[in-house]
Amino acid sequence: MIIDRLYEAVEKKGPVCVGLDTSLDYIPKDFLNKFVSPYDALFEFNKRIIDATEDAVACFKVQIAYYEALGIEGMKVYSKTVKYLKSRGNIVIGDIKRSDISDTAKMYARAYFEGDFEVDLITVNPYMGIDSIMPFLEYVDKEKGIFVLVKTSNPSCKDLQTLYAGEKRVFERVYDFLKPYIEKSLGKYGYSPIGAVVGCTNSDEALDIRKKLNGMFFLIPGYGAQGGGAEDVKRLLVDGNGGVVNSSRGILLAYKKYEDDFDIAARKEVLRMREEIINAI
Amino acid sequence: MIIDRLYEAVEKKGPVCVGLDTSLDYIPKDFLNKFVSPYDALFEFNKRIIDATEDAVACFKVQIAYYEALGIEGMKVYSKTVKYLKSRGNIVIGDIKRSDISDTAKMYARAYFEGDFEVDLITVNPYMGIDSIMPFLEYVDKEKGIFVLVKTSNPSCKDLQTLYAGEKRVFERVYDFLKPYIEKSLGKYGYSPIGAVVGCTNSDEALDIRKKLNGMFFLIPGYGAQGGGAEDVKRLLVDGNGGVVNSSRGILLAYKKYEDDFDIAARKEVLRMREEIINAI
Repeated sequence: MIIDRLYEAVEKKGPVCVGLDTSLDYIPKDFLNKFVSPYDALFEFNKRIIDATEDAVACFKVQIAYYEALGIEGMKVYSKTVKYLKSRGNIVIGDIKRSDISDTAKMYARAYFEGDFEVDLITVNPYMGIDSIMPFLEYVDKEKGIFVLVKTSNPSCKDLQTLYAGEKRVFERVYDFLKPYIEKSLGKYGYSPIGAVVGCTNSDEALDIRKKLNGMFFLIPGYGAQGGGAEDVKRLLVDGNGGVVNSSRGILLAYKKYEDDFDIAARKEVLRMREEIINAI
Repeated sequence: MIIDRLYEAVEKKGPVCVGLDTSLDYIPKDFLNKFVSPYDALFEFNKRIIDATEDAVACFKVQIAYYEALGIEGMKVYSKTVKYLKSRGNIVIGDIKRSDISDTAKMYARAYFEGDFEVDLITVNPYMGIDSIMPFLEYVDKEKGIFVLVKTSNPSCKDLQTLYAGEKRVFERVYDFLKPYIEKSLGKYGYSPIGAVVGCTNSDEALDIRKKLNGMFFLIPGYGAQGGGAEDVKRLLVDGNGGVVNSSRGILLAYKKYEDDFDIAARKEVLRMREEIINAI
């Protein structure tokens, strides 16, 4: 099961997830200028980041919006990047946050669990309820999994997610409708391939959330550039596992902090971040 | 403003929206077999549907999941289809249901309001709150608009959308956080370019919903194949305007009902549906 493999990757290499939310603006000018096509530069930038960090991270997350923004050529780079990641044996999360009615969700499942855009896990949005999520669960036996948006790290998560609907907040209600499927699909380490996106910028609630979302492996965004730190994430982990901690800009733009080549700087930042999290635990 | 143009299109041509949720399976075999590439067949199928119906419909909605499911080649057909629609002066809704934090939502705005995938209006998911929606509103002056998922037509909309959070249901809370922006952006017919996706299969609540979501133009899915009918939609419209009624499979697969060529059948179905809705009003 994919979530067992992810758990094992965290045990072996630590909980860092490298976010390839790569904007063309992030690529150093001198590197960009070596290429005739900016799309080739984009792929090569990703490739170097991957090569420099893969031995020290649990997985990679590719934020598809940055590639969609570049149109067809951008989608080709997305496809090349996820294929390269998989060819190297890395676990890949497609951060796509899709959601739709059942027939359409089937198409999204086909798009991201098969073919050009295939990844191991995807993020999905729960607003339309369980029948918008079921089509993805049909791929659990094919080594696929999902992270459902539960409690995000942006300020306006309060607009819906933390409202009380009866005695529970809306995001807890997401857990409630997923729970029967989570309990049926627990892997050998106690986690289901139905994971949760839980932002790390709300540390006061972190312990409570970790306890409530029992059986869900966490994808934790918001480390670094979005303001979260090691103290915030440690409460979302259990003995340093049960979740991966994503950093995107912090790693991609590390060359501005270390004044090294971008790939060397990215590696330094990954190692620093991993140490910081492990020390906090 | 785009929503004024859409209102005028409904006044002139009626409230039907053709949904180009085109699966390769929907294309008649004899037509498909005329093409070396199934992707060419897919585009030509869409083109014929467009040519046969555009004078009798308010707009078109292209469900991107069906194209993403076909990978890069599918995305090219999506791009060709929306460009063709726009070249003919049609109003195009990209049914993409995207959502993400502000920086990422900016990328989605760029992807679907500019470049290869450009459309006039897109659907967006409100689960992450107002700051995930703001980046799209920056394009209002550029003749763009959005339909926010408010109350969908699938059975499990009850999992979150219709839960009571205090005295209001979750979907009404979506309206609440959008309201200041809706009120600031009303067009000359009283509708904002911040519209709502409201499913038509819950007719009991329809009048109440129409009243509560004041200022929002409706995109109403679920007509035909998903079970909604004219009596259901009339309560979501105001004097036959203020919304468009989407049908996808009902139109694309009309050739199975009428035993005509698929484009002629699609046109018959559009005219039948339009008459049915207008008669109900």
